[in-house]
Amino acid sequence: MTATKYLLEESQMPRSWYNIQADLPVPLPAVLHPGTMKAIGPDDLAPLFPMDLIAQEVSTSREIEIPEPVRDIYRLWRPAPLYRAHRLEKALGTPAKIFYKYEGVSPAGSHKPNTAVAQAFYNAQAGVKRLTTETGAGQWGTSLAFAGSLFGLEVLIFQVRVSYDQKPYRRAVMETYGARCLPSPSNETVYGRSVLAEKPEHPGSLGIAISEAVELAAQRDDTKYALGSVLNHVLMHQTIIGLEAMQQMEMADAWPDVVVGCTGGGSNFAGIAFPFIGQALRGGQRSRIVAVEPAACPSLTRGRYSYDFGDTGRMTPLVKMHTLGSSFTPPPFHAGGLRYHGMAPLVSHLKELGQIEASAYTQSECFEAGVLFSRTEGIVPAPEANHAVKGAIEEAMRCKREGKSETILFNLCGHGHFDMAAYQRYFAGDLKDERYDESELAMALAGLPTVPA
Amino acid sequence: MTATKYLLEESQMPRSWYNIQADLPVPLPAVLHPGTMKAIGPDDLAPLFPMDLIAQEVSTSREIEIPEPVRDIYRLWRPAPLYRAHRLEKALGTPAKIFYKYEGVSPAGSHKPNTAVAQAFYNAQAGVKRLTTETGAGQWGTSLAFAGSLFGLEVLIFQVRVSYDQKPYRRAVMETYGARCLPSPSNETVYGRSVLAEKPEHPGSLGIAISEAVELAAQRDDTKYALGSVLNHVLMHQTIIGLEAMQQMEMADAWPDVVVGCTGGGSNFAGIAFPFIGQALRGGQRSRIVAVEPAACPSLTRGRYSYDFGDTGRMTPLVKMHTLGSSFTPPPFHAGGLRYHGMAPLVSHLKELGQIEASAYTQSECFEAGVLFSRTEGIVPAPEANHAVKGAIEEAMRCKREGKSETILFNLCGHGHFDMAAYQRYFAGDLKDERYDESELAMALAGLPTVPA
Repeated sequence: MTATKYLLEESQMPRSWYNIQADLPVPLPAVLHPGTMKAIGPDDLAPLFPMDLIAQEVSTSREIEIPEPVRDIYRLWRPAPLYRAHRLEKALGTPAKIFYKYEGVSPAGSHKPNTAVAQAFYNAQAGVKRLTTETGAGQWGTSLAFAGSLFGLEVLIFQVRVSYDQKPYRRAVMETYGARCLPSPSNETVYGRSVLAEKPEHPGSLGIAISEAVELAAQRDDTKYALGSVLNHVLMHQTIIGLEAMQQMEMADAWPDVVVGCTGGGSNFAGIAFPFIGQALRGGQRSRIVAVEPAACPSLTRGRYSYDFGDTGRMTPLVKMHTLGSSFTPPPFHAGGLRYHGMAPLVSHLKELGQIEASAYTQSECFEAGVLFSRTEGIVPAPEANHAVKGAIEEAMRCKREGKSETILFNLCGHGHFDMAAYQRYFAGDLKDERYDESELAMALAGLPTVPA
Repeated sequence: MTATKYLLEESQMPRSWYNIQADLPVPLPAVLHPGTMKAIGPDDLAPLFPMDLIAQEVSTSREIEIPEPVRDIYRLWRPAPLYRAHRLEKALGTPAKIFYKYEGVSPAGSHKPNTAVAQAFYNAQAGVKRLTTETGAGQWGTSLAFAGSLFGLEVLIFQVRVSYDQKPYRRAVMETYGARCLPSPSNETVYGRSVLAEKPEHPGSLGIAISEAVELAAQRDDTKYALGSVLNHVLMHQTIIGLEAMQQMEMADAWPDVVVGCTGGGSNFAGIAFPFIGQALRGGQRSRIVAVEPAACPSLTRGRYSYDFGDTGRMTPLVKMHTLGSSFTPPPFHAGGLRYHGMAPLVSHLKELGQIEASAYTQSECFEAGVLFSRTEGIVPAPEANHAVKGAIEEAMRCKREGKSETILFNLCGHGHFDMAAYQRYFAGDLKDERYDESELAMALAGLPTVPA
């Protein structure tokens, strides 16, 4: 028997996002101004984000209504399917039941449009004409370009130069949606020019690209900045994943003992996990929640819970999070969406509160899991999603050892159609499991900013 | 307003394919043996195909039941959505209503798995252990690799060498599904070795790859051959597209005045169109049916309706079809799925019977249409599908000129995520609308085989 698919009616698509800040037993630590090191207020963020999104960032309302124009676009691919992975279970010989939510059905091929569409809507409503953002491999840039095209917004994307050069196909998708894509560091910003002046052949980094995007957004009234992960409102927009999955698990007459997601900045993980955590926080049924991260960039398992900057250039506000230090450069591996030195403050906070477990796997372990998944379930996962597949398989094998028929739910956050170069290297045996440099990590952690108590 | 989506329940997924041979006013011309030039019977095809598929090839039953194991796998992505393209209509300022059926939701990203799964099933049921096939760009090879992995069949794919070298990512998808992919001409077949002996650096062609796949299949009892288009049974497996679309048009309380599909070998076109043509043949409502082909490989608009070989090596049986001549080499353009010298016999026959109109467009016209579609509807089409988009837009613009609010339905047969290199060249202005050589076409047509009356 193949996978069983659980589909919701359009009328069952959630009408609100879930805001976990309403249910936190301890509120999030304050966000600090990078200059004064004092707590910032909504006005400090106004040059970068429209007021509706800033309000969502600090809201403690449990439910925030999804505007109808956003639901209208969600309906292009939502509600997204949830499957029971019968063939994977059989291949593993596990008594566990494995379910997965599939977000690769969006036009961009991943979960990212869930927040891109919402952010584009609120910006368009606020009269913004142009959005700037950064992208590495291009998943986020693609999604914002898609969303911008539907709301008539100009989208300017700073893509890390090494990716810009190596992945022209991703750029072609962004351009097809009408966005402008620039290699970062670029000559369009003061910061970009300063980097290029020092090193004309600089390969770029996500940190530099963020600084460029932020600089341009801050300069012009008609321009704002959009971020694809990390921030509270971004994670909240993704909770539609878990809210749908809850209804679908009920359809399947099952409930997850374990919920698994992969973590980079934290948004797809939060999307599947937060509704389940919230239920437990409100005294309801508790599932184990497992975050899976790459061994080469292990912020949750090896990072420090500390105030840090979001970018390498130390221009963003400081947030308390699990971080490897903003000067830490992860070794090059193929799950580009997971190559971030920090972790979403909400995910970090919940880890500290004991609501989340974390584990880390090498990329070759994850590709091995992804190939098994492809051959049994028929969908080729993105390299990021392979981490969630690996995490779910590990839980299923534990169940086999322990003779337990637990129910496992994981989020398959995107398909791998844009990432076949990575699979190709895996099959060719060219994929190295590069470790980060321990002394570099120690140095990056030692360089964390000191924040007055 | 964004696109309206029309979704069927799983219980509404068709239980049978539609076989248009039941409704033909004149039966198909016979298939001829390449040696004797006499009509072949089922036994002649037995070395290549399992008997169930041969029976389907010649059946005149109107409905052929879809086996439950095939439906089980179809359910991974079917029923596929149908959308009304409100935003495209608005951008065109047309009074026409435009609907599109979207087949890019399959794990392979196109309509091809509809027949790959069926063919893999019947082969597995007949005890076949291994399937051979050819592929150009890789859409078909990907789909058969996917289907083979689900039925435990070994899949051996001969990929045209130039594509094998230029598109390693496509090969990586096939390998991820566990298939073996060889560059053709190869050293694994007598025919391949003979080609290489003459020209070691031969770039390959679909015709050579077909000959290699057929040679291997004919040699071994446990091995059969699978074809992704052209044959009657292949087209029939695709009719699930049109059968679903009919139900969805009823949901939308609309009925197409025009049905548009792109044509290479003819399978996705047949899939959307045959159920509508059948209805008209049985005396029901008649829609105009428009086949859209590339101007650089215009078999329906410029080819001759004549007996011809399916391959360049002249080893396959002869079928009567619209053909540019089996020695005709289409110029290199990016809709690889449409680069075939011939046309499905059923599509050709229906064209001769006046049931189908045909038109041809250049690839840059089609990319322009695809970019407009991407920016309005949010889905980036495959270069092949851009031809259908272009055809639908032309009909919509005619409606605008004539002040008619007709209903247009087209088949969006796949997404373009694997084809962004082509879009990249389009944006860079590097895409030439290469014409075929008129004298080469004349020569290829002059070389058509003579068949005794």
